[in-house]
Amino acid sequence: MEKLMENEVFMAFATYAAIVIIKLLLMGPLTGYYRVTRGAFSNEEDVGRKSEEEKKKLLKIHPDVERVRRCHQNDLENIIPFVVIGLLYALTGPELSTALLHFRLFAGSRIFHTVAYIGALPQPSRGLSWILGMLVTFSMAYRVLSTALFL
Amino acid sequence: MEKLMENEVFMAFATYAAIVIIKLLLMGPLTGYYRVTRGAFSNEEDVGRKSEEEKKKLLKIHPDVERVRRCHQNDLENIIPFVVIGLLYALTGPELSTALLHFRLFAGSRIFHTVAYIGALPQPSRGLSWILGMLVTFSMAYRVLSTALFL
Amino acid sequence: MEKLMENEVFMAFATYAAIVIIKLLLMGPLTGYYRVTRGAFSNEEDVGRKSEEEKKKLLKIHPDVERVRRCHQNDLENIIPFVVIGLLYALTGPELSTALLHFRLFAGSRIFHTVAYIGALPQPSRGLSWILGMLVTFSMAYRVLSTALFL
Repeated sequence: MEKLMENEVFMAFATYAAIVIIKLLLMGPLTGYYRVTRGAFSNEEDVGRKSEEEKKKLLKIHPDVERVRRCHQNDLENIIPFVVIGLLYALTGPELSTALLHFRLFAGSRIFHTVAYIGALPQPSRGLSWILGMLVTFSMAYRVLSTALFL
Repeated sequence: MEKLMENEVFMAFATYAAIVIIKLLLMGPLTGYYRVTRGAFSNEEDVGRKSEEEKKKLLKIHPDVERVRRCHQNDLENIIPFVVIGLLYALTGPELSTALLHFRLFAGSRIFHTVAYIGALPQPSRGLSWILGMLVTFSMAYRVLSTALFL
Repeated sequence: MEKLMENEVFMAFATYAAIVIIKLLLMGPLTGYYRVTRGAFSNEEDVGRKSEEEKKKLLKIHPDVERVRRCHQNDLENIIPFVVIGLLYALTGPELSTALLHFRLFAGSRIFHTVAYIGALPQPSRGLSWILGMLVTFSMAYRVLSTALFL
């Protein structure tokens, strides 16, 4: 079993998979931060023992919170498929340099995507980083299918 | 490491996992298509340099976009668990024919689910395909637990 | 390949991964249960052949359904990263007792999180179980990065 973790492509995959998953997980606390600073909660038990009037004021939707949540959702929709396909891709035994190129492009594109989303940078910055990440995953999926096709 | 990719059950898993993940990823561009054709966006920076009035008109919710998004969400909730459990299932060394039956039923049920959801086919078509996909995952999870149980 | 499933750490991982994924999948039928009992649906085809007036009444948002959906979403955001990082973590060859501690804490914290969310228990019960689960995943990610770092 330890053999997998001695393979350089697999180690590179493990490293970049951990990085993008940590990035994804950090969107949770970031949402919490925006909820507290913007005073916009979803659950009655989250606003504490306040009067009914104060509660109603805090149980609202705030555009900044919704923006972080959409960014989190986009991460879920793109990072998880990357990790799954990337694992299978690493097992097909690609060249180390090609694999590193895929992993680095993906990690870079997703970090930039988050900056562009939270910072509301003008388009097409966010759109292009989203497309780049998706192309990386498609490229890896193509190699998985052309190596392991068994229908 | 390459041994895994010489195992027929694992190759079959890799093939069907790649297919359903590609299907899941394509929901992203499909949402984009509906957003553009229905003129319904979530982010101010996505509607370009327009007058305030035009912007407000484009920053709306459209039922067709919401339908694609629910379908995408349902894919996330069902396809990712299938892929995770399917990987562990493939490692338990099931019969090739049994494994293929599981993978094919799942892939077929999820493709039909998307057609039924986007096309708003009358129920119970969508409901049944959703249940079928879930039963396949439960069946694989049962084998994983009965083979590898270690609490 | 079967060697993986003879390794006790990997078997423990497979067991707890299957448990938390089954827990995640069960949120789907639970949402369905709340939709039916609360009479709150999202899709016109789900409410059957009723008069237009009855349909409109059933196509609504109910706070109980939204609560289950938020809980389901939180599971997706936390359980899937745990499973992905946990797989890589199991491959780094940790001590069995340390690995079991991680897996048990995570599974326990997420089951408690669901009880706290659906039951609307007073905070900080839900918040603490969410943080505990996240800390477990971060701890495993730290070991993955310190064992396999290859940038």
